[in-house]
Amino acid sequence: MPSKPRIALDAAGGDVGVKVNVPAAVAAAKAGIPVTLVGDEAALKPELDALGAWRLGLEIAQASQIVGMHEKPSEALRRKKDSSIQVACSLVKAGRAAGVVSAGNSGATVGCGIFTLGRINGVERPALASLMPTEKKPTVLIDVGANVDSKPYHLVQFGIMADVFVRDVLGVARPTVGLLSIGEEEGKGNAVVKEAYDLFKKTPLNFIGNVEGRDIFTGDVHIVVCDGFVGNVALKLAEGLGKSFGKVLKGELKRGLISKIGTVLSRRALVRFSRVLDYAEYGGAPLLGLKSIAVVCHGASNVKAITNAIKMAATFAEKKAHEHLARELEAHSEIARFGRQSKT
Amino acid sequence: MPSKPRIALDAAGGDVGVKVNVPAAVAAAKAGIPVTLVGDEAALKPELDALGAWRLGLEIAQASQIVGMHEKPSEALRRKKDSSIQVACSLVKAGRAAGVVSAGNSGATVGCGIFTLGRINGVERPALASLMPTEKKPTVLIDVGANVDSKPYHLVQFGIMADVFVRDVLGVARPTVGLLSIGEEEGKGNAVVKEAYDLFKKTPLNFIGNVEGRDIFTGDVHIVVCDGFVGNVALKLAEGLGKSFGKVLKGELKRGLISKIGTVLSRRALVRFSRVLDYAEYGGAPLLGLKSIAVVCHGASNVKAITNAIKMAATFAEKKAHEHLARELEAHSEIARFGRQSKT
Repeated sequence: MPSKPRIALDAAGGDVGVKVNVPAAVAAAKAGIPVTLVGDEAALKPELDALGAWRLGLEIAQASQIVGMHEKPSEALRRKKDSSIQVACSLVKAGRAAGVVSAGNSGATVGCGIFTLGRINGVERPALASLMPTEKKPTVLIDVGANVDSKPYHLVQFGIMADVFVRDVLGVARPTVGLLSIGEEEGKGNAVVKEAYDLFKKTPLNFIGNVEGRDIFTGDVHIVVCDGFVGNVALKLAEGLGKSFGKVLKGELKRGLISKIGTVLSRRALVRFSRVLDYAEYGGAPLLGLKSIAVVCHGASNVKAITNAIKMAATFAEKKAHEHLARELEAHSEIARFGRQSKT
Repeated sequence: MPSKPRIALDAAGGDVGVKVNVPAAVAAAKAGIPVTLVGDEAALKPELDALGAWRLGLEIAQASQIVGMHEKPSEALRRKKDSSIQVACSLVKAGRAAGVVSAGNSGATVGCGIFTLGRINGVERPALASLMPTEKKPTVLIDVGANVDSKPYHLVQFGIMADVFVRDVLGVARPTVGLLSIGEEEGKGNAVVKEAYDLFKKTPLNFIGNVEGRDIFTGDVHIVVCDGFVGNVALKLAEGLGKSFGKVLKGELKRGLISKIGTVLSRRALVRFSRVLDYAEYGGAPLLGLKSIAVVCHGASNVKAITNAIKMAATFAEKKAHEHLARELEAHSEIARFGRQSKT
C-alpha cells in the first residue's frame, strides 16, 4: 500500500490543545495517515509517551508559540512568527506535509492559510465550506465566514470550488448546487443573490436555483452557496438551536427517572438526536481556493472530530482536489470575468 | 370593562382558510376582542353557525376574492381589488377596525399594509418582527424579510421600533438590543453592520453590541436586529431544524414502543421540545413602521396561533404602540438623518 500524504496538525490549537490533538493524531496514524504534530515538544512528548504511540509515522515539529483563541488574528500572526499554526503552514509550503489541520483560532488559520499557502490564480476570496449534518448526506454550506460582502462572481466561485470538493472528497458524482435566498422563485433575494443567480445559470454546475434556510438540513441539496456573513450566522444559529434542544431533552431525562426503560429510551433519543447535529462526524471545514490544503476545526472539537478532519485532509490531498479545483476555475474564468463588471 | 379594539381578520387567508380563521376569531371574541371576519359570507356563515358563535361581537365584511399563497403579491394586489386582505386593510384605513391580522400571502399582506395603511413619517422600510421562542422570554428578531439590502440607518430604525413594541406589547421595561453579526467584538461584521454599530451607540437604546446566531435562542437578549435577508434565512433555518429534530424524535418514539412508560416519557419530551419552537405561542409577526397595525401570521398557523395574533394586535392597539413608535422615531430622527449620509 503506498503511504498516504502527511498532514501537519496544529497540535497546540483548540480549546483543549494537546490532550485532544495528540490522541487524534495517533488515531489517524493508526489508520495509515502520517501526521506531523506541530507544537511545543516538551508538551507533546509526554502525551505521545503516555499513548505509547511512537513508530506510527508520527513526527514532532517544534513551535514555541500559540495564537490564543481570542487574539486578533492579524496582530497575532504578525507578532508570533513561531506559532504552531504558522509553523504548520510553513511545513506545507515547504512540501514537508500535504495539508494542515487546526482547531485553533479560526481567523488565524484562515489568514495563515491564505498568506502562507497562497490563493489559486483568480481566486480573490478563499471560502470555508462547512459540512452540515442532515438525515441523509451532509450538505456543504459555503461560505461560513471566511469573507463578508461577497460579490456575485465570488459566490459562483464558491459554487465551482464546492462542486469539486463534493465530487472528489465526498464522492458524489454530480452534486446539486443551490443559492441561499429568501424564496425559491428566480428573482427572489438581495441584489448580490439576484445577479449571482444569472451567473450560476451560465455555469455547467448542476444548479437547482434558489434554496431557503429550511433546505440546509433536509439533505436534499448537496451544496448551498451564500455570503460568509449569512453562512456564519446560519452555522452559529444551528449550533445554538441544537444546544437548546439538547438541554430540553436532558432536563426531560432528569425529570423522567421513574423507570429504567423510560430512561434508556430517552437517552437513546438524545443520542440519535445529537448525531443529527454531530459536527464531529465530518471533522472540519476545508478552506477552498488555496494552492494547498487547510482544514479548519471547531475550537471545541473532540478527538473524533480532529481525527476525521485529518482523514478529510488526507483524502483531499490524495485526490489532489485543490489542483482539480484550480483547473475548473480556470475553465470557467469567463464567468468570473463577466462577474467583475458586476453592478453590485 | 371598556370594549377592546376591533380587529379585522383576513378570514380567507392561510393554508387552511376559514376552518382555522373562524374558530380563532370565535376564541378571540370570547376573550373580549371584537373581530370582523373578512371573506366570502357564503363560506363564513356556515362556519359561524356551526360554532353557534353569533352575538360575540363578530361581524362579517364581504370580500369576493382571495390572494393565493403563491401569487406574485404586486400583481395580485393590482388585479384583485376585492381580495380579503385588501378589504381588511381598507376597514382599518377607514377606522372601522384598529388592526389587521392575516395568515395569507405574506408578501401581499406586507404590500397591502404598506400601501393601504401607510408608513410612519420618516420610515422608508417597515420591518417584520418575529417572536422567536426561547427557554426564557421570546427574542424579537427584526427584520425577518420585509426588506433586503437595508442601509445602516434602516437597521437603527428597526431597533427603535422593536424597542417600543417590546416595551408596550410584551411588557419588558428596558429591553436589550443586539446587532446580529459574526463576532461579538466591535468591528466584526459586514460593511452595513459595522456602520450600524456606530449609529446604535448614539441612540438611547439599551444596546449591548453585536450578538451571534447562537444568541437568538438563549433568551438572553430581547431584540436582535438584522437585515431582512439574513433574518429570513435564520427564521426558515430554525423552522427547518425544528422539523428535522421533531422527525428524529418521532422516529425514536415508534422504535421505542416496548414499554408504556418509555413512550409516555418520550412523548413528553417531544411536547416540551416542540414548545420551545412553538410559534403559535406568539401568533404572528407585527409589521412595524405603519401608521396602523398589521400582524402577519405563518401560512400554516393553527387556531391558537391566529387567536394569539388577534390578541397581540388588540394589545398593540390598546397601547397605541404605533403612535408611541412614531414619536420615538421622530425624537431620534437626527440619527436617521446622519444615516442618510451613509457610505454603504
